[in-house]
Amino acid sequence: MAEQADQAEQSKRADHHGISRRRLLGTAGAAGAAGLVAGGAAGAFGAEAVRETPAELAGVGSATVPFHGEHQAGIAEPAQAHGHLVAFDLAPGADRKAAAALLRRWSATAAELAAGTAPKGDDTGIALDAGPSSLTVTFGFGRTFFDRTGLTAERPAALEPLPDFTADALDRKRSDGDLWVQIGADDSFVAFHALRLLQKQAAGTARVRWQMNGFNRAPGATARPLTGRNLMGQMDGTNNPKPSDPDFATRVFVPDRNGDWMAGGSYAVVRRIRMLLDSWDHLSLERQEKVIGRRKSDGAPLSGGTETTPVDLNKVEANGSLAIAGDAHIRVAAPESNRGAAMLRRAFSYHDGFLDDGAPDAGLLFVAWQADPLKGFVPVQRKLDRGDGLSRFLRHESSGLFAVPGGCAPGEYVGQRLLEG
Amino acid sequence: MAEQADQAEQSKRADHHGISRRRLLGTAGAAGAAGLVAGGAAGAFGAEAVRETPAELAGVGSATVPFHGEHQAGIAEPAQAHGHLVAFDLAPGADRKAAAALLRRWSATAAELAAGTAPKGDDTGIALDAGPSSLTVTFGFGRTFFDRTGLTAERPAALEPLPDFTADALDRKRSDGDLWVQIGADDSFVAFHALRLLQKQAAGTARVRWQMNGFNRAPGATARPLTGRNLMGQMDGTNNPKPSDPDFATRVFVPDRNGDWMAGGSYAVVRRIRMLLDSWDHLSLERQEKVIGRRKSDGAPLSGGTETTPVDLNKVEANGSLAIAGDAHIRVAAPESNRGAAMLRRAFSYHDGFLDDGAPDAGLLFVAWQADPLKGFVPVQRKLDRGDGLSRFLRHESSGLFAVPGGCAPGEYVGQRLLEG
Repeated sequence: MAEQADQAEQSKRADHHGISRRRLLGTAGAAGAAGLVAGGAAGAFGAEAVRETPAELAGVGSATVPFHGEHQAGIAEPAQAHGHLVAFDLAPGADRKAAAALLRRWSATAAELAAGTAPKGDDTGIALDAGPSSLTVTFGFGRTFFDRTGLTAERPAALEPLPDFTADALDRKRSDGDLWVQIGADDSFVAFHALRLLQKQAAGTARVRWQMNGFNRAPGATARPLTGRNLMGQMDGTNNPKPSDPDFATRVFVPDRNGDWMAGGSYAVVRRIRMLLDSWDHLSLERQEKVIGRRKSDGAPLSGGTETTPVDLNKVEANGSLAIAGDAHIRVAAPESNRGAAMLRRAFSYHDGFLDDGAPDAGLLFVAWQADPLKGFVPVQRKLDRGDGLSRFLRHESSGLFAVPGGCAPGEYVGQRLLEG
Repeated sequence: MAEQADQAEQSKRADHHGISRRRLLGTAGAAGAAGLVAGGAAGAFGAEAVRETPAELAGVGSATVPFHGEHQAGIAEPAQAHGHLVAFDLAPGADRKAAAALLRRWSATAAELAAGTAPKGDDTGIALDAGPSSLTVTFGFGRTFFDRTGLTAERPAALEPLPDFTADALDRKRSDGDLWVQIGADDSFVAFHALRLLQKQAAGTARVRWQMNGFNRAPGATARPLTGRNLMGQMDGTNNPKPSDPDFATRVFVPDRNGDWMAGGSYAVVRRIRMLLDSWDHLSLERQEKVIGRRKSDGAPLSGGTETTPVDLNKVEANGSLAIAGDAHIRVAAPESNRGAAMLRRAFSYHDGFLDDGAPDAGLLFVAWQADPLKGFVPVQRKLDRGDGLSRFLRHESSGLFAVPGGCAPGEYVGQRLLEG
């Protein structure tokens, strides 16, 4: 079993790290994709299962994202169809040693699940029959973790509390937390299984503080695999930094200075942003598009072209008005409007039923990644808070900021350099 | 647009009704499946989108289940990856005429969404880019509907309230309702979009009473497309009646007697069944398998064979004990133990986070279909309530019983024979 995992690991790591089979499936032609599927299934399932599985069905299940690497998985890869965000608080008496043991258990389990092997002693059976389905598990530390484990001196300056924003209506019980885990997979059972195992492994050491479920479009549901939509119907993520951008790593990952334990890591800003969909739907399509600055149908900026055409913030219409309005979301959020500040948004949508007033309790589990929140989320959100036409249709209901260490090699665990440094 | 929909409709109805393209995709070989995908995509998206879509990715999105037919969709077809169950109560003053208008709007919208065409006036954009993704929308009437619309004389005897069971811990606010809608799709955005449109179309006529979200395994995540698992890790549905069974229609659908408005319809029992997963996981694998009567790994009955081997309830082990224990779930639930009573279970799993005591708020959105609840759910649940070893790991937290009329033809709406009879 270990040999098989090692073999799979090697073949994965031969690819550029962070480019998952799933991503390749999204862009490769049919013949190339079929080849990949067959290869993946052989690694993950063994030969017998492969024979039973029509190639076009095996794609979702057999796709893997390697757990080990320079960076943690679940940051640079496209967001999966199902996500769980969960924060834990350390139990009273749980110290640095207990936290280290937990991170060791969690890392080992996450690596096994990501490779499609069953963790020893797990007989829940929830994910039996399924492949790893692009599972990623990502671990982070909240500001409060460091005092509780006697590691105050190691706490990064970047974990200073986020400023207050006027659009905030934060529920503190659903905010922050000592530890944060992001789980993503293209199958709901695979994602739930990982959540369940990690929660059980935390028993005695950490307790769930809050937990949220999110989703994205299913693989294969759409002809546009790269840019998804949010529940307002707008494409979301067109201008996201891309792994192929020359400055991607600089923007997203912490550089290695003097062996900093956060080298190769990233900072995650997590916000539960409820969308006031009833108010939003009362706007005409034209008004909605002006608020965003893009056409709903195809994501093209109102300054012209197609979805990927660079936005022309200075374009003036024949009637003298700006093509992209002064308070349009894409103008206020643009790096050009924020001294180059940018972050990698990797969100899930959520829908938790209806509120007492009949409005949907739905919106975005916003997760933004950056090397430094003060050059990413903070300046952009400050600007949006003041001038974004979209703000009045959003409520930020919870907030967290987490230090997400770099990835680890086989045999190591996430956070080891902090906890044993 | 209408012409295109008609054409698609005709080609669908040429197949045996109830056998969806999705089901065919699950069993056909790769070449056959690719042909179906191409055909479906041409109908649903038009030629341009087809060119952009790799065939193996288009399968999920382009699969359709026809809305019109002898029976409503969403009963005989396999349950989709995403489900919404929602109950509405009529608003004060909403009468039979208002209810009829609502069902007409709802039916027209459901038919358009199922065929992959955009309903007129809908600019939410939530499901833009996506195919219908096997969307089904199913409408039913609760017991209270009939008094409120002056149709008491038409209320079927089968809608008598379900008896109380000792395992019940029912929340009445999340039970019952005048109207019930079941939405299923293999894409989360497609399912949410349908829910959102139907809720908006109800404004002024009916208000959401309760709403629940559920899920099943994603298409392609597993090599076993036919029998899914539940969150206890057990295969669930092995012995379900199958559309190919000679008595399937008799068990599931109401026969046509004297033009009964329920002819071709079915009765849905809906229960939110929370699983006590912490207690369950404390059992050894062997104990769990004895409680169910099947092996967890492959679903084979403990009396021997493979998953599909008929259960031998009389088999005695060498040590003299029954292979399938006296209180094993599959013994107590078996038609042989219930004078042949059987129902079609078509469930979704649910997970709504964690309860205050740290236990997962998770389990099964149980939906059971039968021609007569007194020959399906009621006798089986009576027996389970007394003698099922599984009962102590379950809490029935909500309950509903709904009369689901037969399907309708294009131009008609669901429930028309009742509301205009």
